[in-house]
Amino acid sequence: MVIFIGENKKMPPCIFCNILSGLTPADIIFRDELCAAFMDIRPINPGHVLVVPISHAALLTELEEAACGRLLLVAQRVDAALRASGLKCEGVNLFLADGRPAGQEVLHVHLHVIPRFAGDGHHLRFHPAYFKPTPLADLEKNSDLIRAHMGGS
Amino acid sequence: MVIFIGENKKMPPCIFCNILSGLTPADIIFRDELCAAFMDIRPINPGHVLVVPISHAALLTELEEAACGRLLLVAQRVDAALRASGLKCEGVNLFLADGRPAGQEVLHVHLHVIPRFAGDGHHLRFHPAYFKPTPLADLEKNSDLIRAHMGGS
Repeated sequence: MVIFIGENKKMPPCIFCNILSGLTPADIIFRDELCAAFMDIRPINPGHVLVVPISHAALLTELEEAACGRLLLVAQRVDAALRASGLKCEGVNLFLADGRPAGQEVLHVHLHVIPRFAGDGHHLRFHPAYFKPTPLADLEKNSDLIRAHMGGS
Repeated sequence: MVIFIGENKKMPPCIFCNILSGLTPADIIFRDELCAAFMDIRPINPGHVLVVPISHAALLTELEEAACGRLLLVAQRVDAALRASGLKCEGVNLFLADGRPAGQEVLHVHLHVIPRFAGDGHHLRFHPAYFKPTPLADLEKNSDLIRAHMGGS
């Protein structure tokens, strides 16, 4: 039998949209009308979860307000569930890469929720050389630039 | 002149609460009734901002729902402002350490918003050895444990 795959049968290019539509199998632990959470298949530690918006947005800045707010609420819920799960979890890291230069690999917003424990061997901190305290006066020229685009506070 | 500092004049122990109450100077770029954003005095890159809830919560799991949702919305706004600011910003990382074993240093919830650019010298990714794809069947024993504590989906 020959199966013709027409233009409209092509799988969309976004792996997370495929997961959300059921085209690609995943281990989904939560879903509501705005967000879903599923297991990362390349876990940093056992229990590593990704929280994503249902509606496709490549970048955080493109994400609609309702889904953006919900994303962290779902991550908070995953955080609490990890701590209660019996998995090794003494703390939790949230991580989001927004854009390729920030390390984003899948261009569908995703928030990593990663269980951590003492001695897990991960070193998530930045290089200490970058942690030099900066006088407030020196920060101001940068903060003025950012503040100008915050739209009022 | 002798100034007596009474018991109730003692500074509270939380540095971020001190910033929010004005006791400790900081370069605040945004504030509403739930959250504030100010410059990190040990910036990873120029423009590094912290977003915090106004009301003290040590851990993300202790944060009230309204502030939790708002936190990511403010971070999204900072992300957009950084990209528009003229500071070097080709991408953005969000990072949150929840609990000491996850690297939390100040026990008041704070979400790092960090501008990134190609060649900035930071390596935020985890050790590649931890990125081995894991068969779905192997993830399931962990996901069952988490799902049991997600409170329905």
